[in-house]
Amino acid sequence: MSASPYKQLEQEFKRLNAFRGALALLRWDAAVMMPRGSAEVRGEQLAAIETEHHALLTAPRLTRLLDRAQANTQGLSDWQVANLQEMRRQRDHAIATPVTLVARLAKATARAESRWIEARAQGRFDTFAPCLEEVVHLVRDKAALLGQALNLAPYDALVDEFSPGVTTADIDAILKALSRRLPSLIREAIAGQESQPLLPLSGKFPMGKQRALTLEVMKAVGFPFNNGRLDESEHPFTEGGPGDVRITTRFSADDPFSGLLGAMHETGHAMYGLGLPQDWRDQPVGRDRGMAMQESQSMLVEMMICRSRPFVQYLQPLLVRHFGASGPEWELENVYRHLTRVRRGLIRVDADELTYPLHIMLRYELEKQLLSGELAVRDLAEAWNTGAEQRLGVRPSSDGEGCLQDIHWAVGSFGYFPSYTLGAMIAAQLHESLRAGLPELDAQVAGGDFAGLFGWLRTNVHSLGSKLPVQDLLKESTGKPLAATAFIRYAESKYLDNTASSAAA
Amino acid sequence: MSASPYKQLEQEFKRLNAFRGALALLRWDAAVMMPRGSAEVRGEQLAAIETEHHALLTAPRLTRLLDRAQANTQGLSDWQVANLQEMRRQRDHAIATPVTLVARLAKATARAESRWIEARAQGRFDTFAPCLEEVVHLVRDKAALLGQALNLAPYDALVDEFSPGVTTADIDAILKALSRRLPSLIREAIAGQESQPLLPLSGKFPMGKQRALTLEVMKAVGFPFNNGRLDESEHPFTEGGPGDVRITTRFSADDPFSGLLGAMHETGHAMYGLGLPQDWRDQPVGRDRGMAMQESQSMLVEMMICRSRPFVQYLQPLLVRHFGASGPEWELENVYRHLTRVRRGLIRVDADELTYPLHIMLRYELEKQLLSGELAVRDLAEAWNTGAEQRLGVRPSSDGEGCLQDIHWAVGSFGYFPSYTLGAMIAAQLHESLRAGLPELDAQVAGGDFAGLFGWLRTNVHSLGSKLPVQDLLKESTGKPLAATAFIRYAESKYLDNTASSAAA
Repeated sequence: MSASPYKQLEQEFKRLNAFRGALALLRWDAAVMMPRGSAEVRGEQLAAIETEHHALLTAPRLTRLLDRAQANTQGLSDWQVANLQEMRRQRDHAIATPVTLVARLAKATARAESRWIEARAQGRFDTFAPCLEEVVHLVRDKAALLGQALNLAPYDALVDEFSPGVTTADIDAILKALSRRLPSLIREAIAGQESQPLLPLSGKFPMGKQRALTLEVMKAVGFPFNNGRLDESEHPFTEGGPGDVRITTRFSADDPFSGLLGAMHETGHAMYGLGLPQDWRDQPVGRDRGMAMQESQSMLVEMMICRSRPFVQYLQPLLVRHFGASGPEWELENVYRHLTRVRRGLIRVDADELTYPLHIMLRYELEKQLLSGELAVRDLAEAWNTGAEQRLGVRPSSDGEGCLQDIHWAVGSFGYFPSYTLGAMIAAQLHESLRAGLPELDAQVAGGDFAGLFGWLRTNVHSLGSKLPVQDLLKESTGKPLAATAFIRYAESKYLDNTASSAAA
Repeated sequence: MSASPYKQLEQEFKRLNAFRGALALLRWDAAVMMPRGSAEVRGEQLAAIETEHHALLTAPRLTRLLDRAQANTQGLSDWQVANLQEMRRQRDHAIATPVTLVARLAKATARAESRWIEARAQGRFDTFAPCLEEVVHLVRDKAALLGQALNLAPYDALVDEFSPGVTTADIDAILKALSRRLPSLIREAIAGQESQPLLPLSGKFPMGKQRALTLEVMKAVGFPFNNGRLDESEHPFTEGGPGDVRITTRFSADDPFSGLLGAMHETGHAMYGLGLPQDWRDQPVGRDRGMAMQESQSMLVEMMICRSRPFVQYLQPLLVRHFGASGPEWELENVYRHLTRVRRGLIRVDADELTYPLHIMLRYELEKQLLSGELAVRDLAEAWNTGAEQRLGVRPSSDGEGCLQDIHWAVGSFGYFPSYTLGAMIAAQLHESLRAGLPELDAQVAGGDFAGLFGWLRTNVHSLGSKLPVQDLLKESTGKPLAATAFIRYAESKYLDNTASSAAA
């Protein structure tokens, strides 16, 4: 007696999951360990495994099994039915893009990425433009095919890959609400902060000490080093999943916090991966719910927990012990001010949480225009600079701090940028419910106890895996639909708060 | 017009090679970087990629292409014809073992390996015996099937996997020649060494300094760090191939040489991998010629080059610079005596080059008896201890330093042990030809110039890849068939040499 179609599918997807794990390790190694001259060989390995993964996922046999399993779901649990839906989703996404287009995109983005690195170093967009133009053409084709297959508008189909169930209409509504309140809020916050003294944290902070501090905080938070690692790389990232999750950060000798906070951001991602439902760990329904949810977890930990007075209260004795920090500049309120400084800057990855959405709005508008053809690639740099000036009040002096600052478009990741702001909205909404459900949160964090925080997140987010679309998950865990209101409330209370020093008492 | 069968095969094997590269990285990471708790997940990844590799290699389409390509080799170069033969060899080896047996072996060896680790720690063979029995049964089945498919005796079929073209008859002839001369040679060497003073090299040698010394020597030797790495692991090993080769060693704070020499041993392997024919780097004919050739390269570098007076002459100023070494115990002759000390010991991996073959003889006899059924698994420990006493003159006091010391049998590697001694014979034979062809070798090595050495090896061994069977390759590069005579000449001249100190002048 052969296994049921559903059981056979579980076996197939278990295998596919192992392929994905191998790919994750190959990428991690390329960024963290690989000798510089080995990129070509690694590229061949990645291509071979990815191609095979794609072939297995789009094989006629798998489609037949899916058809049979979905035709009769009697006797399947709701998790199993959700698992089938996620299997179908993965297969539909994969099959919509023909192998030839996948291969052309892979080549074009590989070329564009290496040209982008050079162009960014020189700060000159014009040398990169032809490569980007090729990528835009191919992504446009992909979006059209994906849209047809998923019955979505082309750009929505791209967004669906990163934030399942979220549409342009959702994003537009949120960005509209934000653009109504953020500009004045930023002005008020900056004015308020300028009236407060800020003592500089000068000195050198040896990498080894920063690393020891970061490891201690990660241990306190519950990062399981038995199933994970912390390393260093040019850009912080998280790779892998439950069973083996690896994060990286980058330490800077002049800055005692950027390495730590980078690691805490990635720890937010990692804890999500580690909290996914154990029983489904090698199945599609056991995966995280896309990039918006991922970003919500990293931002909640970095921005809402670690850039808060209770966290600074916990951190202070560690700063004394690891750096020998003493003097008035290391007092709670001054450290907190450093961690929550609002500045209108040019670089997205350095942005605070208030100005961050402005960076996303700029990219969101421009990438939609690039894909629709409304904006020609050759005019991108000028459009960027104008947009940056309008939104952020500062104009890039070179393309390196303008439209060349992010890798996303070079590697074909269109539709990804909104995830950051969606993530911030989700984070604020979760944070509000978390605080309501766990009134002792601040006291726990101040005491270095993070079990309540991650317990809540595990119950209400992590353990749900991919069982529900983003919005349904959010309704389930917060009782409210996805919106910008919680974020605006959070931002107002945090950045217009003038009862500063009393809050930590 | 579709590509020729040969060209299609090249494409297929290029893909298979990328799979092998990915597997190599997954294994390297497991030994060097992986968090301890991630073994299960890694096991699933390895199994998925290995299974797929096996399926692709044994697919009917590939066999049909091979039949068509080999039916008409007109117009193919001799390298291409040799490539076809190696493709066939790989396919024949893979297809002879049915997938079900491969899977059972994988499970049995995984179980045996973890039990072996525990049993070795406790020094008790009886708790490991049932697991080993299961492995022996499965390997016996595998050997029988492989023997049928390759038209070889079962044990010869296992040897063929590691040392293509070498048979039991070849091994027997070599071991017979060695057992006629080695016991007396060892006695004479030990007696001679006992009459010479040996000053102890006491002190502590910080790991960081040992690492710096090792890196400096590896750079001098020509290890290309742009395509490779040095790391640390419990047992030294080499993983990967041209394009990305990674070696490990293990430093001991009490011993200034074991970490360095472990790294040089592995560098011998790595230089072989890096010297393989560039044009064939992703094809079967571009691979190394099996484990006996591999071991010849590591032993030649470690034993014949690095444990020589000219090398010590080169090394001495480095010891002064890195360790601040001074005093009579650091003089050339005393260091050389440390590096060439002959001792009858229980542990194979610690053995000198004279007693090493005795360890292999013991294992070779026992594994043949285990496979034929002549020796029951439950009687192995006793047979081992008796054999060790007879051959080495010392009896293990626990199974941990007896039949549990090596991992090979636990992981199903029967037929592998002879490679070490075959490798030593090949190394001596190559070394003899190398010295004849490069009279300035000693002077070069003493001056820290290794270009002549590796140039010769590249021309005469590395660049031939897998074009010829082991014996033919050896005839081509040394003009002589595989035999023990060169090794015995080398051993006599090195270990019965009483003109010691003059040789370095």
